[in-house]
This record gives sequence, structure tokens and C-alpha cells, in this order.
Amino acid sequence: MGVFLSLDGLDGTGKSTQARLLVEWLRGQGYAVTACTDPGGTDIGAKLREILLTGREQKMSIRTEAMLFMASRAELVDRIIRPALARGEIVVSDRFLLANVVYQGHAGGLDPADLWSVGNVATGGLQPDLTLVFDMPTDLAAVRRGRAADRMESRGNEFAVRVRAGFLVEARRRPELHRIVDASGEVEAVQAETRRIAGEFLRGRGFPVL
Amino acid sequence: MGVFLSLDGLDGTGKSTQARLLVEWLRGQGYAVTACTDPGGTDIGAKLREILLTGREQKMSIRTEAMLFMASRAELVDRIIRPALARGEIVVSDRFLLANVVYQGHAGGLDPADLWSVGNVATGGLQPDLTLVFDMPTDLAAVRRGRAADRMESRGNEFAVRVRAGFLVEARRRPELHRIVDASGEVEAVQAETRRIAGEFLRGRGFPVL
Repeated sequence: MGVFLSLDGLDGTGKSTQARLLVEWLRGQGYAVTACTDPGGTDIGAKLREILLTGREQKMSIRTEAMLFMASRAELVDRIIRPALARGEIVVSDRFLLANVVYQGHAGGLDPADLWSVGNVATGGLQPDLTLVFDMPTDLAAVRRGRAADRMESRGNEFAVRVRAGFLVEARRRPELHRIVDASGEVEAVQAETRRIAGEFLRGRGFPVL
Repeated sequence: MGVFLSLDGLDGTGKSTQARLLVEWLRGQGYAVTACTDPGGTDIGAKLREILLTGREQKMSIRTEAMLFMASRAELVDRIIRPALARGEIVVSDRFLLANVVYQGHAGGLDPADLWSVGNVATGGLQPDLTLVFDMPTDLAAVRRGRAADRMESRGNEFAVRVRAGFLVEARRRPELHRIVDASGEVEAVQAETRRIAGEFLRGRGFPVL
């Protein structure tokens, strides 16, 4: 059985870059790593991601948005993640269910408990063994993400504040499943901390890393 | 506040024809009726319906399938059904959440209770005031639907038997919300029974019909 890690956090915190560097590091040590992005990662997921990203012009309901993420994730779990874990691989996912709970729940107005519950059905109960939550002040994240381009990134600072707070609330509520990473430093420093946390966790699961 | 009716049942029982005739009858009596089909009924729903109908070749996970129905329904509820009910209209939907519970639950292997629960989140708690469940022997339904064309209809008789049984179990479990209609007769006879049941219910809700 493999190990399932996810990286999540407010847009602009650099989690996608950190995920890519973490995957490179693990592969460099000889591990088979399946890297994926949620939403996405499958043919159906790609179509749904497109519907999601353009959904704003269509004034999509927030419930629809949440369910589309759930559908994309269900496919990702059954087609990609579960088979990779069954092969004994390390899976590194750029976002997972927690992002739904935070964006459509804490920040979007749906009940976070409902989203955990729906997510549990969508994934068949699979959850990351560990989620690294990348955190930084919202004004710094806004600068880092530069010009906002898509639905996820084109909302105001008030929304970002709710997103950031939501991630911290959820991470602190279940500390055994989450680690908060201060992402306000340089890429290299944040990656060093990411590797330290992931490495310690992986060693505990029988995946020795340097 | 309007009234929300849905028509459901095994493929081939004629519910879509019955829904169309029921809508014509109600409009003929001067009522504003919003007719819709689930999945479908919105721009996003149409895209999702297409993904669902072609999903078989892509070996879509049953959890994905269920969540796509939920997403399409969330949009239908928020954009079409709730506004129509707020305008005081009669809404007639060709299928609704019950179909998910039966097809992906009773017949497909997911837990029906999970699907009711997810559906409750997707619809924001909206459910039909009354669902007419069209029932007939599965071999007759197979003849009536002729050559099976899409994902929904191209499974075997064993599957159809589970679908039929699922509809009956759910209808009998909550008799206040369901009526079972024997759909094995001619279209006109079945429509007469449909109008009798719908008419009685509507009169009780302050919509006098002849």
C-alpha cells in the first residue's frame, strides 16, 4: 500500500510549484510517484475542469460547482489514485477535497460538514494520509498570483480572507492529518520545509528518504 | 408557492410520454407549467448529460456518474425549478433524485442512503411534492424501449430487475411522497390514471383541475 499526500492552500501560495519540486525530489530518490491535480487528471476531469473554469460567465450555482469538483475527484480517485496506491506508489495531489470544503464551504456559504460528507461518498472514503496546507497573508498571495485569470482567482480580498481562515480552521481541527507550512518565504526555503515535513511522514510509513 | 411533481421509473415505461401529455393537459387548463428533464434542462446540464451518455466508452466510475447527475440537478434546481416554484407554477420533471438512488444505488451498488444524503446537499433540500413511479414488468419495458441506444438503456435484464425493485422499495418506503402507476396498459389508459392521481394531488394543494 502506498502513501497519499496532498498539498493545498489559498491560490498564490505556491503549492503547485512546491508539489512539482516535491515530486522531483521523491523521484530522484527512486520512488514511483503519481502526481495529479484536482480537479483534472482524467479525460472526464479535464472536461469538467473546463466547465468549472468557464462556469462563472454562466453564473453556475455554487452547489453545481461543488458537485462538479466531487465528480472530477470521484473519477480521479477510482482511475488514478487508488490504482497507484495499490501499486505501492507515493501519490502527490495538487489540491483535494479540503479545497472544496474551504472554497465552497467556509468561503462560499455551503455547510463544511455537508461537503465533508458528500466528499466521503464521492471518494469512497479515501482521504490523504497527510495534507500540507500552504499559508501566507492574503495580500502577499494576491501579489504572488499576479493578474487573476480564472474563476478560482478572480474574487476579492474578503473572499481570500475567508479561504485562508477556512484552511487554518480545518487544519487545526484535525492536526493528525494536516501540517501548516509557512509559504511566505522564498521558493527554496519553503521547499526545504516541505521536504522536511513530507520526509518525516514518509519515513514513518516505511518510505525512507534522505 | 407552486407544486413540484416528478415522473420516474424504469426506462421503457413511457414516463417521458406521460410527462409530456400531463404537461399539455395542465397547460390546457390555464396553468403555468415548467417542464424539465433531469439530467438536462440547463446549459451546464446539457453538457453534463452528454458526458454521462458517452461515459460508458470512457469506463466512467459509478461514483463519477452519480456525482455528475447531482451536479446537473443542482443547476436545474437553482436555475429552473426553484424560480418556477417561487412564481407559483406547477413543475413537472421527467426524473429526479429518486432515479439516482435507484440506478446507481439499488441497481448500481452504491448505498441508497448515501445517495439520498448527497442529493439533499445538491438540491439544498428540495424534493418533489409527489413522485409518480411508472411500473411494468421488465420484459415488457425491454420490448417498449426497443433497441437500446445509450448508457442508461444498454444493460441487461438482471440490471432492469434491480432497477424495478429499487423503485418499488423506495416508493413503498415513503408512500406519502410517491404513487405507483401501472404503466403496462395503453398510453391513453395510463395517462388517464396519471391525470387522476396528479389531479387529486393538485386539488389538495389549491390547484383545482378538471
